[in-house]
Amino acid sequence: MNSGHLMFELAKRLYPICRSITGNGVRETLSIVKEIIPLEMVEVPSGTKVLDWEVPEEWNIGDAWIKNSAGEKIIDFKQLNLHVLNYSTPVDRQVGLKELKEHVFTLPEYPEWVPYRTSYYNRQWGFCMSQKQLESLPEDSYQVKIDSELKPGSLTYGEFVVPGKSEEEVLFSCHICHPSLCNDNLSGIALATYIAEFVKSKALHYTYRFLFIPGTIGSITWLSRNEDLLEKIKYGLVLTLLGDSSPFHYKKSRRGDAEIDRIMNWLLEKEEGARLLDFSPYGYDERQFCSPGFNLPVGRLSRKPHGEFPEYHTSADNLDFIQPEHLNRSYEFLLKVISVIEGNKKWINLSPKGEPQLGKRGLYKQVGGMAQQKDYQMAILWILNYSDGNHSLLDIAKKSGIEFSVLNKAAMDLQHASLLKPAS
Amino acid sequence: MNSGHLMFELAKRLYPICRSITGNGVRETLSIVKEIIPLEMVEVPSGTKVLDWEVPEEWNIGDAWIKNSAGEKIIDFKQLNLHVLNYSTPVDRQVGLKELKEHVFTLPEYPEWVPYRTSYYNRQWGFCMSQKQLESLPEDSYQVKIDSELKPGSLTYGEFVVPGKSEEEVLFSCHICHPSLCNDNLSGIALATYIAEFVKSKALHYTYRFLFIPGTIGSITWLSRNEDLLEKIKYGLVLTLLGDSSPFHYKKSRRGDAEIDRIMNWLLEKEEGARLLDFSPYGYDERQFCSPGFNLPVGRLSRKPHGEFPEYHTSADNLDFIQPEHLNRSYEFLLKVISVIEGNKKWINLSPKGEPQLGKRGLYKQVGGMAQQKDYQMAILWILNYSDGNHSLLDIAKKSGIEFSVLNKAAMDLQHASLLKPAS
Amino acid sequence: MNSGHLMFELAKRLYPICRSITGNGVRETLSIVKEIIPLEMVEVPSGTKVLDWEVPEEWNIGDAWIKNSAGEKIIDFKQLNLHVLNYSTPVDRQVGLKELKEHVFTLPEYPEWVPYRTSYYNRQWGFCMSQKQLESLPEDSYQVKIDSELKPGSLTYGEFVVPGKSEEEVLFSCHICHPSLCNDNLSGIALATYIAEFVKSKALHYTYRFLFIPGTIGSITWLSRNEDLLEKIKYGLVLTLLGDSSPFHYKKSRRGDAEIDRIMNWLLEKEEGARLLDFSPYGYDERQFCSPGFNLPVGRLSRKPHGEFPEYHTSADNLDFIQPEHLNRSYEFLLKVISVIEGNKKWINLSPKGEPQLGKRGLYKQVGGMAQQKDYQMAILWILNYSDGNHSLLDIAKKSGIEFSVLNKAAMDLQHASLLKPAS
Repeated sequence: MNSGHLMFELAKRLYPICRSITGNGVRETLSIVKEIIPLEMVEVPSGTKVLDWEVPEEWNIGDAWIKNSAGEKIIDFKQLNLHVLNYSTPVDRQVGLKELKEHVFTLPEYPEWVPYRTSYYNRQWGFCMSQKQLESLPEDSYQVKIDSELKPGSLTYGEFVVPGKSEEEVLFSCHICHPSLCNDNLSGIALATYIAEFVKSKALHYTYRFLFIPGTIGSITWLSRNEDLLEKIKYGLVLTLLGDSSPFHYKKSRRGDAEIDRIMNWLLEKEEGARLLDFSPYGYDERQFCSPGFNLPVGRLSRKPHGEFPEYHTSADNLDFIQPEHLNRSYEFLLKVISVIEGNKKWINLSPKGEPQLGKRGLYKQVGGMAQQKDYQMAILWILNYSDGNHSLLDIAKKSGIEFSVLNKAAMDLQHASLLKPAS
Repeated sequence: MNSGHLMFELAKRLYPICRSITGNGVRETLSIVKEIIPLEMVEVPSGTKVLDWEVPEEWNIGDAWIKNSAGEKIIDFKQLNLHVLNYSTPVDRQVGLKELKEHVFTLPEYPEWVPYRTSYYNRQWGFCMSQKQLESLPEDSYQVKIDSELKPGSLTYGEFVVPGKSEEEVLFSCHICHPSLCNDNLSGIALATYIAEFVKSKALHYTYRFLFIPGTIGSITWLSRNEDLLEKIKYGLVLTLLGDSSPFHYKKSRRGDAEIDRIMNWLLEKEEGARLLDFSPYGYDERQFCSPGFNLPVGRLSRKPHGEFPEYHTSADNLDFIQPEHLNRSYEFLLKVISVIEGNKKWINLSPKGEPQLGKRGLYKQVGGMAQQKDYQMAILWILNYSDGNHSLLDIAKKSGIEFSVLNKAAMDLQHASLLKPAS
Repeated sequence: MNSGHLMFELAKRLYPICRSITGNGVRETLSIVKEIIPLEMVEVPSGTKVLDWEVPEEWNIGDAWIKNSAGEKIIDFKQLNLHVLNYSTPVDRQVGLKELKEHVFTLPEYPEWVPYRTSYYNRQWGFCMSQKQLESLPEDSYQVKIDSELKPGSLTYGEFVVPGKSEEEVLFSCHICHPSLCNDNLSGIALATYIAEFVKSKALHYTYRFLFIPGTIGSITWLSRNEDLLEKIKYGLVLTLLGDSSPFHYKKSRRGDAEIDRIMNWLLEKEEGARLLDFSPYGYDERQFCSPGFNLPVGRLSRKPHGEFPEYHTSADNLDFIQPEHLNRSYEFLLKVISVIEGNKKWINLSPKGEPQLGKRGLYKQVGGMAQQKDYQMAILWILNYSDGNHSLLDIAKKSGIEFSVLNKAAMDLQHASLLKPAS
């Protein structure tokens, strides 16, 4: 089973769980991820001050339905958890069609689909259903029942750190607060899990940190508890919407020219149809990581662009909407990103005056005068010429057009020949 | 009567007056403007040293004509003041056709039009007429008469200042030295007058200064007398050629990236056919404001580009060449410029770590999860994210694509909610 | 005889000489150049440490041939010196076809041509011949004879300096190590010689230095002996491949924005088909001049781009491949480069506040109001406006679009009128 299938299986298992920004759905989700990577589950009590916010009361839900006067369940939470307004207050009473309609959300543009709606900070009860169903409802007396509970508890998130040779960090973050939505949140969770699983067995230069957090309040909570380590974060990616067939969309960090932006720019030039988007203060948790007081070098990688597809935040973002092959392509691309991050050093040429004599070090071809030069031999020259402490290996890759892996090999050989040392 | 008609009426009244760089024509012009705005008239004596120059002798003219031997006036200054070479020395004598021709300027390319010519610093007498007329003149004895006077007097200019909350200034300048030319000088005078009339009744942030000055020697004179206040000038525009139907042409300040240049660039992107021109050291008084020793942030706004239309500096730049509707469009555009100048502050987000919780401050919608966001709500996020002291509201308008007025409203509300303060 | 013919005649005379990176071929070449310009010939002993390298043993060759068993010379060095692998060790013995082939280099893609091959630092013997000849060789016993000698001696280069008013230098460098190759090395030698011949009779601002050096080891040797004067080099060009009909190709210095790069960029915009190439660490001696430890402002001027034409490093780069008219065009272009280098000063406007009154200094036309302005009069205004110490005459030429020579004339006149002084 390749990584795409493993990720799809994980998404399938997580799909039925009713997640929210707090509650047992999040805990259940993280426990399943924990079977694959040994993440830490962190509980932050309701009422804790986090930056400008406060951890809200914990929301849990047992069941919910609407019954008509014949006692038939016309809406059943157990069939589809999107039917309940996320964070809905409990309710249990009889209502007429008119009052019911005041508490129902639909998607008139897509009459067959059920929308996903939330009301975290404004207490109300509500249901979501298809426009078609709403229109078919007769005048009747309906029993509405939401067996939910809002009370002090905690906000739960998962964190997993793989220490590297350096204390400098690469951050991957995904949100875990959406209920039965696949591309939006499950694809990100699956990718973060299996990228972490890959990284944990390697001896890498950077420390890798993986966050599984509820959107907005989760990143705000994590940021408020970890201000001290933020300066160590050198690269970061928010992962979401990675299971569909679209070309990659990379949203730049607020800085716009952070190394992660430059790497993605360069790698995505080679990916057909890929697009780079400027930072905007709307979207996922990059909003928080890139708020002006933090301004972290964190971009966002997606396939579909955020919000620009009809299935977004609807029941149509289900298991049919993502595919193992697409998850796998996202995974392979992220491994490439990691290999560039790892090799993207600045070097210092230790013999910078004139070219060093490569022949006597076995680094040059034996017969001169031929017009063709192998990439490797050119890589040697490019690295020597531009390793002045101002150019990273990525800069040299851009200038030379030579494959990053060839340059990396050449750099290793030059270091071995004592012609290169890492810039401090 | 809308502003376009008011401006046209003013131009009509000023049209017959024979203006020059000094003299009673300028005084009469400024007196008429003074009926609308209470400008100050400044007199600077001939001989006064002004930068590298000296205020010249004052020129006044009573009448001028050419009579043929039959005593018929074939050229009459009272019919068209362009017929006299501006700053012509007096003359009163009989000349043959050959000698007359040595003192006549025509426009062979446009044989029906009379050119406008000046000779401020080289003493000579002369007439301007149409090429057609010149060619029709028979051998004859002509009486040439120019009843002009050149003697010590003064240079006259007008100045009007509307104090604002700040001592920082916005400068509008127009030239008042051209005789019966409409687009070139009367349209600028009319715009400057009615923009000043608009500004004087508003309580604005900036101090607004309006200059009505003879070209070149006037700006040099004003600059030499006001060196101390130049550092207060934050924005400036030379106004001329604003009454015709062309799209806007904005000539950048010498700096090229002054805030006025950036504002005009952004506003003119939305004006069909508008063009931005790089600074060049030729044109109107921007030459002096943007000389390297001053280098003020002063650009030039016109409709027709300077010198690139056949009517330029000819009798065809008459009242038919300008229209109330075009003057009005220029006026409306300048009001837009002023509103952006006024709102173009840098702000500081007072809660820059993560997004502040907008909901508890009534600044956020009540039900989450919907893909569409109103411009206003996006404006809130854009301003919060980029108000780090480095980005002006104009920068944020460019990045976000949101209407400036919407951003301005959002900034006011955020300031009211204590989430924003002006950058010092 | 124009310069093109003189240069062609020089190339013709130098063509038969068997040059290498050391040896009598170089000395003979420099002696001929010395008939035209009084260059200094420098000898650097074998074994001398030069940067990371060591001056190699000197190579000389008397004769070389291959004879078949019938005693017929099938390869004769005296017919074409490319037949011998440059720096070949001596050999004198009988070999079979199989062994012979192990020592023969050909060009299968161009079966009629003989390649040029070298083996400076890897001791071996070898011949070069056409692929066609190789294929025609029967099984036989061949006598191979190379009467060469490798022993301690010296590396020879030529240097010629024309002192200018300033100690700041303009460097021209050409390589002199290729045997019978015309575009590659002889065209550069011819240009450098006749440019030097032109410069030596002029009183110029800069000091001009001309280097005639063997490739790579020659520039490394020169650099190692002249580190102290490198900071004086303000402009530099490597000259090579200048005798063919291609449009100009200019390879930028490593800096990419050195003044020489900006001048070439501007001049080549006017040359049809000319192209600018980014620096790359492969090519001719710019590799050494632009190594990161020196990073000199040295670009390379060529007609054909390096290595991208089939005749490169083959017997087809012969006297038919270059033409007097092409050499002459390269020469004329280089004179233009020199005139811009010489005139490319920064000036200071001594009357920077407002425009100075040009009329009283005889620098302005007599009758105002005309739309057209002569280039010269505009040049006056452009220079005054931008001579703030930050803009060179080249910058002003770019901004204004005015001919460099007109600007230069205007600058001289303004200096004469005490309105301009050179920036220190």
